[in-house]
Amino acid sequence: LPLNDSDVVIAVDAMGGDLAPVAIVAGACRAAREWSCQILLVGDETRLTPIVTREGSPRRVRIVNVAEEVAMGDAPAAALRRGDSTSMGKTIDLVRSGSAHAAYSAGNSGAFLALATFRLARLPGIARPGFATAWPAKHGPMLLIDAGANVDCRAEWLVQFAIMGTAYTRAVFGVQNPRVGLLSVGEEESKGNALTTEAFPLLAAAPINFVGNVEGTDLLLGDADVVVADGFVGNVALKTAEGASEYIFRTLRQSIEFGSPLAKLGAVLLKPVFATVRHRLDHRYHGGAPLLGVRGTCIIGHGRADAVAAYNACRIALRAVREDVVGAIERLLAPATVKAAP
Amino acid sequence: LPLNDSDVVIAVDAMGGDLAPVAIVAGACRAAREWSCQILLVGDETRLTPIVTREGSPRRVRIVNVAEEVAMGDAPAAALRRGDSTSMGKTIDLVRSGSAHAAYSAGNSGAFLALATFRLARLPGIARPGFATAWPAKHGPMLLIDAGANVDCRAEWLVQFAIMGTAYTRAVFGVQNPRVGLLSVGEEESKGNALTTEAFPLLAAAPINFVGNVEGTDLLLGDADVVVADGFVGNVALKTAEGASEYIFRTLRQSIEFGSPLAKLGAVLLKPVFATVRHRLDHRYHGGAPLLGVRGTCIIGHGRADAVAAYNACRIALRAVREDVVGAIERLLAPATVKAAP
Repeated sequence: LPLNDSDVVIAVDAMGGDLAPVAIVAGACRAAREWSCQILLVGDETRLTPIVTREGSPRRVRIVNVAEEVAMGDAPAAALRRGDSTSMGKTIDLVRSGSAHAAYSAGNSGAFLALATFRLARLPGIARPGFATAWPAKHGPMLLIDAGANVDCRAEWLVQFAIMGTAYTRAVFGVQNPRVGLLSVGEEESKGNALTTEAFPLLAAAPINFVGNVEGTDLLLGDADVVVADGFVGNVALKTAEGASEYIFRTLRQSIEFGSPLAKLGAVLLKPVFATVRHRLDHRYHGGAPLLGVRGTCIIGHGRADAVAAYNACRIALRAVREDVVGAIERLLAPATVKAAP
Repeated sequence: LPLNDSDVVIAVDAMGGDLAPVAIVAGACRAAREWSCQILLVGDETRLTPIVTREGSPRRVRIVNVAEEVAMGDAPAAALRRGDSTSMGKTIDLVRSGSAHAAYSAGNSGAFLALATFRLARLPGIARPGFATAWPAKHGPMLLIDAGANVDCRAEWLVQFAIMGTAYTRAVFGVQNPRVGLLSVGEEESKGNALTTEAFPLLAAAPINFVGNVEGTDLLLGDADVVVADGFVGNVALKTAEGASEYIFRTLRQSIEFGSPLAKLGAVLLKPVFATVRHRLDHRYHGGAPLLGVRGTCIIGHGRADAVAAYNACRIALRAVREDVVGAIERLLAPATVKAAP
């Protein structure tokens, strides 16, 4: 384990994401300046050098030159075949070889998932890694897992997500006994689909603090620290909340635009409040989703990640490395009997 | 078909919902006063009479006395066995016997679904009825179906939902060629789970205007007029949006409470704008979800339905009867070849 922040090396796919490389490099350079971690910017040197120079060439930032990149539309299998000849493949490979502790990419998430799963390998006892996303909740963040890595889940995978989410929440958010909920359509055990009703008793028997079913409303208003879901359902929920938030703020803005002069004055006075609330739901603030279940710290960013998002992703990566999330998951998995369903 | 609003008879389960009977009766009485439809209030006469009197005993409101009621926790099978001895069973039965054109209940939705499905029967070609909920969208309302009636769907049921949603949107919202989207985790045809990838080509071949996959963000920000989903996924999305909206307005309120005096002044000035935006996402405004696919107009209300919600549910019921939604669905289904998947 790295002893200090300055020992932590984060490999950043500088070419991944809609706003790459400029925004990603800017965010990573800011992270290196503020927390003294080391950053390896992976990508096309000729494009990256001028951006790094503009950022003041922070001394803990180095460029790892890789000419090719994975495009947003590329098939995961194609990205796998190209190995470390792409910036994303090389980013993962730096973790595999021990040259970096963590990998971050805001590029093609399917390709990132495949590369991380097959190049870093899964942890023993984990059938499928899952994307974990942090949501604002009453008492600190709530973790939703899986937010889109696996679209057709088996019940025992949900149990593995619950164990990984518990270990992460304990290590990173400092919640000693995280409350784990199962995303369903009603609170009673009988409410749910074939998957959740099969998963319910398995979760109740797992070495976690299972609190039963939770509903969509509970994702932002409930008491759970970890919510597990099939990746299809988790992804729909994540994007629905994102859309609802954007819809509300957009509609407020439009109503103010066509509103009375007094309403316009009110909007000016409330600007800081709007900013605060919006901020809490902003994907940029949360930086990225840790991919839990692989041997290494991997953070997948939002495709629209900007410099703030890249900066926060590095913060999350640093924290996950320093708190040894991978080790914490392994330790919690070891005694757990995560059996396949009959 | 009823020739005038005054010919339309709506049976209202006066005992269903957290705020029943007072709020439900108040909303139904207001509907009778404003639109001249006939209301049959089904429930315990001794409890209903004083409330109706307090509402000024509107002349188009009558009480149908039924002593028992279905409780929120009752199993649908139990509700079915009790037939028309409960207020909910009798409400459905009034439609079955032709004494009413539409049924509304804000009570136990599983029981209502079972009663409507088995007592009224499904339309030919419909395997499973679905709950349709209206969401605010750019150009008028968007219909999400199924919002929770069927937790484990087959691909061909999604096609039936799409046809029913198309017929409803055309009849009630006046959209001639509604754009139908499939709720998934990416826009490309290949993105999705086993169910959606199987449903995609069936939807493409159906006599509807299928526009492909849509994502959670598109539910409030997209262009589709109808979005089809498995009832589990649809219910999670609906409740997630509901929770996100409540979270945002609650957080705004708290931030204002602890904010500066200027922020408080801003909040006062913006009050009408907040009310307008909140209103659009409020379940009370939309009143209730039509249950499409049964032989009769059935509206299921939110468990927390108040007088405004009950009033709007009657408005929706009246509109669905006057526009002959059931007939429109039958006509659109007749030529459609909705085959079972191999």
